[in-house]
Amino acid sequence: MSKPVLGILGGGQLGRMLALAAARLGVRSRVYDPAPDACAGDVAQLVCGSFEDESALARFCAGLDVVTIEFENVPVRAAEIAGQHVPLRPGLESIAIAQDRLHERGVLGRAGFATPVSEAIDSLQDLRDAVARREKPLLLKTRRLGYDGKGQAWVRSVADVEPAWARLGGHPLLLDQGVRFDREISLVAVRGSDGTTVHYPPIENVHREGILWTSRAPAPVDAKTLALARRQLEHMLDRLGYVGVIALEFFETGGLLLANEMAPRVHNSAHWTVDGARTSQFENHVRAVLGLPLGSTEARGWAGMLNLVGTAPPLERLLEDESVHVHLYGKEPRAGRKIGHVNVCEADERSREARMSALGAILEGSNAHVRGAG
Amino acid sequence: MSKPVLGILGGGQLGRMLALAAARLGVRSRVYDPAPDACAGDVAQLVCGSFEDESALARFCAGLDVVTIEFENVPVRAAEIAGQHVPLRPGLESIAIAQDRLHERGVLGRAGFATPVSEAIDSLQDLRDAVARREKPLLLKTRRLGYDGKGQAWVRSVADVEPAWARLGGHPLLLDQGVRFDREISLVAVRGSDGTTVHYPPIENVHREGILWTSRAPAPVDAKTLALARRQLEHMLDRLGYVGVIALEFFETGGLLLANEMAPRVHNSAHWTVDGARTSQFENHVRAVLGLPLGSTEARGWAGMLNLVGTAPPLERLLEDESVHVHLYGKEPRAGRKIGHVNVCEADERSREARMSALGAILEGSNAHVRGAG
Repeated sequence: MSKPVLGILGGGQLGRMLALAAARLGVRSRVYDPAPDACAGDVAQLVCGSFEDESALARFCAGLDVVTIEFENVPVRAAEIAGQHVPLRPGLESIAIAQDRLHERGVLGRAGFATPVSEAIDSLQDLRDAVARREKPLLLKTRRLGYDGKGQAWVRSVADVEPAWARLGGHPLLLDQGVRFDREISLVAVRGSDGTTVHYPPIENVHREGILWTSRAPAPVDAKTLALARRQLEHMLDRLGYVGVIALEFFETGGLLLANEMAPRVHNSAHWTVDGARTSQFENHVRAVLGLPLGSTEARGWAGMLNLVGTAPPLERLLEDESVHVHLYGKEPRAGRKIGHVNVCEADERSREARMSALGAILEGSNAHVRGAG
Repeated sequence: MSKPVLGILGGGQLGRMLALAAARLGVRSRVYDPAPDACAGDVAQLVCGSFEDESALARFCAGLDVVTIEFENVPVRAAEIAGQHVPLRPGLESIAIAQDRLHERGVLGRAGFATPVSEAIDSLQDLRDAVARREKPLLLKTRRLGYDGKGQAWVRSVADVEPAWARLGGHPLLLDQGVRFDREISLVAVRGSDGTTVHYPPIENVHREGILWTSRAPAPVDAKTLALARRQLEHMLDRLGYVGVIALEFFETGGLLLANEMAPRVHNSAHWTVDGARTSQFENHVRAVLGLPLGSTEARGWAGMLNLVGTAPPLERLLEDESVHVHLYGKEPRAGRKIGHVNVCEADERSREARMSALGAILEGSNAHVRGAG
């Protein structure tokens, strides 16, 4: 295989980091995005086109060895068209599942995961009935196209029913039990084309206003609980014939892991792997979709990540600590937009926490970087 | 500084790896190379032009924040022209010095380094006289445009004078004392725009047929010897007002370091830093030339690198060991051509050696990857 070409549907930061990882391996990347300034275009060939434009998609696919996705809301029809020209990894079913929260919960449940109590809501009357009947708080969510806390409304009492419906009504909806969780945990795994699955250490996440704020790994998780979750995940991946990186987000409550969401792609909560694991999630995704052996997922130390959301301090300021790893995506700052992240990796937990606190203080000091999301 | 643009004269693998490091920091790169298939063009904007084409160089420079070089034989005039449009880092003097081995030796000597005994050779008679007078073996070298052992001829007796002259005569030449060395060591440092200099751990190198074969770091070097060499290097960099990464190659003989060559750029012997140091040489060069604070040069463990020269085993084979880091440059295989390298980084020296031996065996097995150089 000499100089293979990887196609990526979507040209955002995940596509950019996939392209950077691919380049290390001598693999060229071509990204497809409607935006002419898509940030992955800085480091890969960018083909601009609408996800509805079948002929542009066909031209994009010409000469590719494989095609993958970088955001889970890529229109299923676009992925399907690409998949008619060139192998699509992960496959269409996996992509489709993650786009419908109800379907997703079903798949997670069948794999043996506990999930938050949930029901479909198709009308205002449905919502009224459910809210009257169920323990509050409840979280109303669109079944499709939600991310970073978008498309969600809390329902803490009957008084919230009408405003929530006004915001989200008209879309297929899901009503989740609000979970009082102790921690948010994500599990990130990679399944190779030969069925081998490898697992990154568990990750503890903190969100702010619906957007990931920090990740830390390895997160201490009870060994039996972890082993069971990994077996369930492998079972699910085997059934789907999944190839590539997948992320599962969990609420941990009283030692129990409740599976909340899956992302059939590289995931923000594993950005620390670029500087904190032997092989980054991006390289492992590239390896998986190209049918190459997977790399070690071992952590290099105590790793952490802080997202840069909306705006960021000057690069000079972020780089003052000689031991942090700054990643900027080349995107224009905008409220609620992920424009970069900072990784740390230290020999012990205390050093990691010290560095993350110092960085957190710098970020808090620099404008309203966590505000304005929405 | 929002989305700065870095210009790189030369579009080979060093330019490619600089562009990859720049992209992490949100910095766009533009490379200049005569070859339309220059491998850095896969990950950066490529401007094709001859190094003699002043107007193409001027167009290349438009909109750049800074310009640097990726190979030390970039024509000085081209660097000078670029430097008239945009800050050139490192500066013209540093680039010019490294292009003339005689001048280079003078600069190294003035910085206090011991160097191999050497003299200029301008005629066949000069060569005959010197060979009669001096202890053999001697190494005849072109003063300009040598790299990877090119432009060199050994003179072990008077019988070698005519053939050596036939090969190299007509160029300005240098006649070096052949050094019976114990080890080859390189020192790689980075000087920031504020004059701060940081040092990577010393590196031990093994060449084959004039081409770097392996590097290992940190190499044990006597602490006093190392401290002195670093002071001398800092002194030299300060005098030159140097900005960026620099590499010095030494012969170690009886505990003494003899400075042989300098490279005013990122260097093959520090490729291990991508996976084996907190901050790679590429990122630190980008930081330096953009006036940003430098990153930690601390090794993450026992690091090593093997070059892939001429040809490489299939990628699948190289990736069989889940813990190695494969870097391919996207270049067509050709005898004597550097097409990639493999990094290892382990917690102890023994594991590093085990992995490097195994890799070496794979490479030896795959065709004549070290033969055909020249």
